[in-house]
Amino acid sequence: MLLSGGLDSTVCLAIAVRDSPAVTTVTVDYGQRHRRELEAARRVAAGLGAEQLVVNLDLSAWGGSALTDDAIAVPNHTAAPSYAASGAIPTTYVPARNLIFCALACGIAESRDCDSVYLGVNALDYSGYPDCRPEFIAAFQEAAALGLKRGVEGRPLDFRTPLIRHTKAQIVGLGVELGAPLELTWSCYRGEMEPCGSCDACALRAKGFSEAGVTDPALR
Amino acid sequence: MLLSGGLDSTVCLAIAVRDSPAVTTVTVDYGQRHRRELEAARRVAAGLGAEQLVVNLDLSAWGGSALTDDAIAVPNHTAAPSYAASGAIPTTYVPARNLIFCALACGIAESRDCDSVYLGVNALDYSGYPDCRPEFIAAFQEAAALGLKRGVEGRPLDFRTPLIRHTKAQIVGLGVELGAPLELTWSCYRGEMEPCGSCDACALRAKGFSEAGVTDPALR
Repeated sequence: MLLSGGLDSTVCLAIAVRDSPAVTTVTVDYGQRHRRELEAARRVAAGLGAEQLVVNLDLSAWGGSALTDDAIAVPNHTAAPSYAASGAIPTTYVPARNLIFCALACGIAESRDCDSVYLGVNALDYSGYPDCRPEFIAAFQEAAALGLKRGVEGRPLDFRTPLIRHTKAQIVGLGVELGAPLELTWSCYRGEMEPCGSCDACALRAKGFSEAGVTDPALR
Repeated sequence: MLLSGGLDSTVCLAIAVRDSPAVTTVTVDYGQRHRRELEAARRVAAGLGAEQLVVNLDLSAWGGSALTDDAIAVPNHTAAPSYAASGAIPTTYVPARNLIFCALACGIAESRDCDSVYLGVNALDYSGYPDCRPEFIAAFQEAAALGLKRGVEGRPLDFRTPLIRHTKAQIVGLGVELGAPLELTWSCYRGEMEPCGSCDACALRAKGFSEAGVTDPALR
């Protein structure tokens, strides 16, 4: 399972741990501006008793995103509620990030003979990234079935995206219900000492906790 | 374009350089046993006047292949001519390699606003890897169109695989015709001082030169 250390992947990990006998989490150190999420992911994996594998892959070598290129500023959250409706993709989009991360997950899953890949992607209360949408995941799963040895052998990897059609409030509620360590998670794109409160990630997170009627345990 | 430094990708690069105003080659240092191909790739890119980007991504961290795990021996070439017919995939298969490499190529292509990705894959005189087959490339291109910003914007990346249905002899002939620096290429999986002559990569290469009636310029 791909674990960023944010809210969605942490709740997804709680589901994976509940449903699977053994879970390996994969966290990518990709040169992200918000490196604090790496430490969050480490604590979340430990807190939920899952193994963690950190992959070093420097996407900032070619940049093209506010998250990997210091020359591009992280924008403040503006258009509520839905980027999907407007069709505009914000500058925090990282070129091919989920293509790359899903491919890495496939390699690790096949090497370890895992049957499933869990992804905490969400296409409802999200930043409008195309690689979080169900149609992308379905197409990727099909490509993986054709490209992997285990797919050719009739044992394709099963991609599980239990949160993909949840609202952020539903994700918060599910996290509380499952005892996910939400207090350890990190969402803010700016990655400073405290969450900025104004980027897309902070705004969507705040909306989720607010609508769920839960106080965000990561905020002091 | 993905460049390994082998015969096929070198001939493919000669085609890309002929057909495109600017080409960026991407070579992955993935912990491969035959690291000599990295130096070959560097020389080939320089020889054909293409920019080279080296991506460091250690696939040996999880292994699962004779090319990334020293505990798994590189097998000698046996079944001539076709693995595809037998359906057996050799231990030199690297889990998800082309999924990962194609995804990396997408990220770099999108960041640099390239229109096409060239791949030197071949599904005729090859080792039977599922991720070299046309059906995989077609499915991956579809997934990339859905997952990338430029796909959503109506400008999907064009995947070009000019050698996919060529015999190795045809590839050698084309390389000679285009003046590709075949003398700089490295194919052998064992990666010792001289090509071993007995692994799959050596055997397929020898077959290609022999059938094309050309002396392999990389052999002294």
